[in-house]
Amino acid sequence: MRPITVNLGDRSYPIYVGEDILAEIGKLMRQAGLGEKVGIVTDAKVAGLYLKPVEESLRRSGFGVSTVFLPEGEEHKSRDSVSAIYDRLVSERFERSSSLIALGGGVIGDLTGFAAATFLRGIAYVQVPTTLLAQVDSSVGGKTGVNHREGKNLIGAFHQPRLVLIDVAALRSLPRRELVAGLAEVIKYGIIADPGLFAFVEEKLESLLALEREPLVEVIAVSCAIKAKVVEADERESDYRSVLNFGHTVGHALESLTGYEEFLHGEAVAIGMVQAASISVRQGYCDQESFERIRRLVSRAGLPTEIPDHVEPQELVKRMEVDKKSAGGKIKFVLCAGIGKTQFHWLSPAEIVAKLAP
Amino acid sequence: MRPITVNLGDRSYPIYVGEDILAEIGKLMRQAGLGEKVGIVTDAKVAGLYLKPVEESLRRSGFGVSTVFLPEGEEHKSRDSVSAIYDRLVSERFERSSSLIALGGGVIGDLTGFAAATFLRGIAYVQVPTTLLAQVDSSVGGKTGVNHREGKNLIGAFHQPRLVLIDVAALRSLPRRELVAGLAEVIKYGIIADPGLFAFVEEKLESLLALEREPLVEVIAVSCAIKAKVVEADERESDYRSVLNFGHTVGHALESLTGYEEFLHGEAVAIGMVQAASISVRQGYCDQESFERIRRLVSRAGLPTEIPDHVEPQELVKRMEVDKKSAGGKIKFVLCAGIGKTQFHWLSPAEIVAKLAP
Repeated sequence: MRPITVNLGDRSYPIYVGEDILAEIGKLMRQAGLGEKVGIVTDAKVAGLYLKPVEESLRRSGFGVSTVFLPEGEEHKSRDSVSAIYDRLVSERFERSSSLIALGGGVIGDLTGFAAATFLRGIAYVQVPTTLLAQVDSSVGGKTGVNHREGKNLIGAFHQPRLVLIDVAALRSLPRRELVAGLAEVIKYGIIADPGLFAFVEEKLESLLALEREPLVEVIAVSCAIKAKVVEADERESDYRSVLNFGHTVGHALESLTGYEEFLHGEAVAIGMVQAASISVRQGYCDQESFERIRRLVSRAGLPTEIPDHVEPQELVKRMEVDKKSAGGKIKFVLCAGIGKTQFHWLSPAEIVAKLAP
Repeated sequence: MRPITVNLGDRSYPIYVGEDILAEIGKLMRQAGLGEKVGIVTDAKVAGLYLKPVEESLRRSGFGVSTVFLPEGEEHKSRDSVSAIYDRLVSERFERSSSLIALGGGVIGDLTGFAAATFLRGIAYVQVPTTLLAQVDSSVGGKTGVNHREGKNLIGAFHQPRLVLIDVAALRSLPRRELVAGLAEVIKYGIIADPGLFAFVEEKLESLLALEREPLVEVIAVSCAIKAKVVEADERESDYRSVLNFGHTVGHALESLTGYEEFLHGEAVAIGMVQAASISVRQGYCDQESFERIRRLVSRAGLPTEIPDHVEPQELVKRMEVDKKSAGGKIKFVLCAGIGKTQFHWLSPAEIVAKLAP
């Protein structure tokens, strides 16, 4: 297994992608030089499927293991869940040399990363993402956080993991709807950085949806490598890293406005990508054919492409303003210049409303 | 006014020390390139004395200013206080380009720094410390945090300020007991790094206690410069930075065991320094004469030197174990090798108990 490396000086780390590799975690954490005490953060559903091989591997490698169970779901991506982690770490006398493992989807990963970022002013953590979305997106790059009632991820920190272990076998237990939602982010990487990846997904879509090992490992590894490159260039999102937010400005606002109930994150991003591509065409950055390919692939994957009728563009734009990407009243949009290239563009709320109108 | 610089690459920042310089803050924040929106975090007592000149200076320089009032005191160095800051920043639509100012003592500084570290994954902040302790210690170096009911600063982050503004005029309103407690940290810098500073404090003690401008600016500037050098060498306390904890291992445990009521931080550190110096003599690192000079200066300053009779050494050691500086069951002590040099030494709980016994 040859890892992808995220090169960030003394904060560099490897990403391993493979099938049935959970049992390697103890050995890999030893190689990474992590301390004796390890806390696994997970939820009951994931634990039922994957906790045992992870715990056994850690114990075989001589780690002392505790497990913290959190309730499932985005509504628990809160400061209360982080408190529950802190309390456990304090009561078990975790030290600076101790580490955490996030075993689960994006919520578990973001919560665990934030707890690790802020316990004793920062301890090590490892990402073991079990959803496609987390595997290709949130587990890499060091963004951690919790939600505030007024917006997602308003509280958080940049804190890079020490190791990312991606086992595609975990996707076998993932509901189809979540798998498809994760594919939205893979398609995004193609649009922002890699025409070859985009074409590969167009060609292998059915194999990917059937969870065929080879194309799956391929698109996950390529997606992670693209994300690694972007993060290396701009770790703290001074500017360039926000290319990763292609489709997310509309996507986040849509999730927020619909109370995080109507759409999965990837579904909202899918709509956001098609809208961003459409704005890109109107702004003259993107050709009509590329736009059609984007809309077609999103749609073929089984993802939504349109803002639902009950959502008012004005309301959507209001939500964008509380998002982290606004400054001086204008909102930063990532647009696409065909497939494989991006273009930043600042738009006022009124301009966005006009452009989102059908 | 020539600043001291903390050299940390793209996170470098200046420390300004002077008298009656609060009104310079607007200009200095402009120079530092900070954004339009500024939130001042303070408490009612400090605000009554210093808020007006700070606000006026900011407005003159074109900043939009909001003020967040927090309740006074160490018991409010909690996640609830941080929540109060978050809520305000969200409701006033603070952006990534916005910044915070900590106007107050160490509690305000640590809380504000932690809120800045974790809001939108990190915004800028400025330290305007108004106690001697905060001026020579907590305002410089980027340690931020809040207390957990089981221990001080267990939750926190490293997040460097963008500017530190130290106005010695603020010390005129400081209770004498707090001034003296702050001197403990100045004496500490002499012991760990600078025999000249130690001798200067020995010579000018009365002038310092009388708040004479020149020696005060001198010892604060020298203390900050020492701290800056240590932080530059080891920002995240991998190892060397812990020299700053001379006197703090016993000091923190003593504060914790006495419920943070009997001693001010500097007073507990004063006792801790004399105890650490005494252990240093027993370990053969420190000569008897240096020990006597340390004990004498601490005592002359009006600071305590002895662990009170009602405190059991065993109980004290238990508190050290939950502190951040323990690993593998042993506790890391910073000892002194005479005045101006330090020596790390790991001790087991039993060894510490034996050495703390009179």
